[in-house]
Amino acid sequence: MSEIVLYTYDWVPELPRGHVRDVRLRWALEEADLPYRVASVPFRERGPDHFAHQPFGQVPWLTDGDLSIFESGAMLLYVAEKSEALMPGDIKGRNEVREWVFAALASVEAATQPWSILKFSGLDGPTKEWAFFENFVDLRLQRMETVLGNREWLVAGRFTAADIMMADVLRLMNRFDRLANYPACKAYVDRATARPAFVKARADQLAHFAAADQS
Amino acid sequence: MSEIVLYTYDWVPELPRGHVRDVRLRWALEEADLPYRVASVPFRERGPDHFAHQPFGQVPWLTDGDLSIFESGAMLLYVAEKSEALMPGDIKGRNEVREWVFAALASVEAATQPWSILKFSGLDGPTKEWAFFENFVDLRLQRMETVLGNREWLVAGRFTAADIMMADVLRLMNRFDRLANYPACKAYVDRATARPAFVKARADQLAHFAAADQS
Repeated sequence: MSEIVLYTYDWVPELPRGHVRDVRLRWALEEADLPYRVASVPFRERGPDHFAHQPFGQVPWLTDGDLSIFESGAMLLYVAEKSEALMPGDIKGRNEVREWVFAALASVEAATQPWSILKFSGLDGPTKEWAFFENFVDLRLQRMETVLGNREWLVAGRFTAADIMMADVLRLMNRFDRLANYPACKAYVDRATARPAFVKARADQLAHFAAADQS
Repeated sequence: MSEIVLYTYDWVPELPRGHVRDVRLRWALEEADLPYRVASVPFRERGPDHFAHQPFGQVPWLTDGDLSIFESGAMLLYVAEKSEALMPGDIKGRNEVREWVFAALASVEAATQPWSILKFSGLDGPTKEWAFFENFVDLRLQRMETVLGNREWLVAGRFTAADIMMADVLRLMNRFDRLANYPACKAYVDRATARPAFVKARADQLAHFAAADQS
């Protein structure tokens, strides 16, 4: 049997630690109790081999035997299909997991990412641009608040891979206290991040980058 | 056999016509020669039934018998799995289509969408914000230029659903002449949009919205 190898940077600055996207895959692999190992690639010098696996020069990517997959959404679905712990077996459930993984990225993170970029860059000022992206985030959070006000988890009344992606996107907003007006979103993030698999995944990522500080 | 029904607005303003995301699904369904019909929902008054199918109150969504799916990426993969015209049958090819569909949305459109939003809002001025998103778009286009300089289509040396998503994202940049410095990206968009299935899909969308102007 082949082994899943998850590739991430050898080191990153303090700020993104705990949020580098390999955490999404660590979390999924822990939930499913699948064997995997983590391998490091240089943060500072990204060579041709890096770009061959990840055309944008980012992380993570994973390999499983001959397969090499990038994009956290694609990797998450690949891992989810290996385990009922992450995805129901019926067609309806599988399609719902997939649509919510896409929604987390293409509808919610599409709004939260430009907001976060401006925030991290100190461009969260009294400008039309900031007001626009503030409003864009609120539009999406208002809708998620309605969705999460009615259910504990997104799909099939149980935790799935869809919740890994959505909770990981929303917890970055929570870090900035941006869910203060969205109690159902906040409770959902708290519920998801209290799971032992997430706690371990995040701790493992922090330890991975902390180890690099020592070396 | 059930019938695929694609839901889109009954009307939209001039500006987005030709770019409303139902075009991605029309294109895929035409490439695969699958039977489908298009149904309209009100643009101006979005009721509970709309939100039940599309939690963000957007379009498109599709139904196929009892299934109802939203998010253009999820719908595109659902349709692609029905036809070898859109996706190779082998595991490697299927994973590559999936990762590039995600990449088109979560890596490329993640940069082009905030840029387009600022552009459409007249906020493409001499500001730090605009400079930031200009640079973000260039970072992604530079990488896509390398990728597309080496291949005609993204996956398996043939046209797939991955090209529908990527070309649809890039053609919005082309509309603003934003691919002028990226000849491989521009040639790729020209190649993709010359396909009869795209030409019909776009013409059908334009006719759909034009018909609403008459009524």
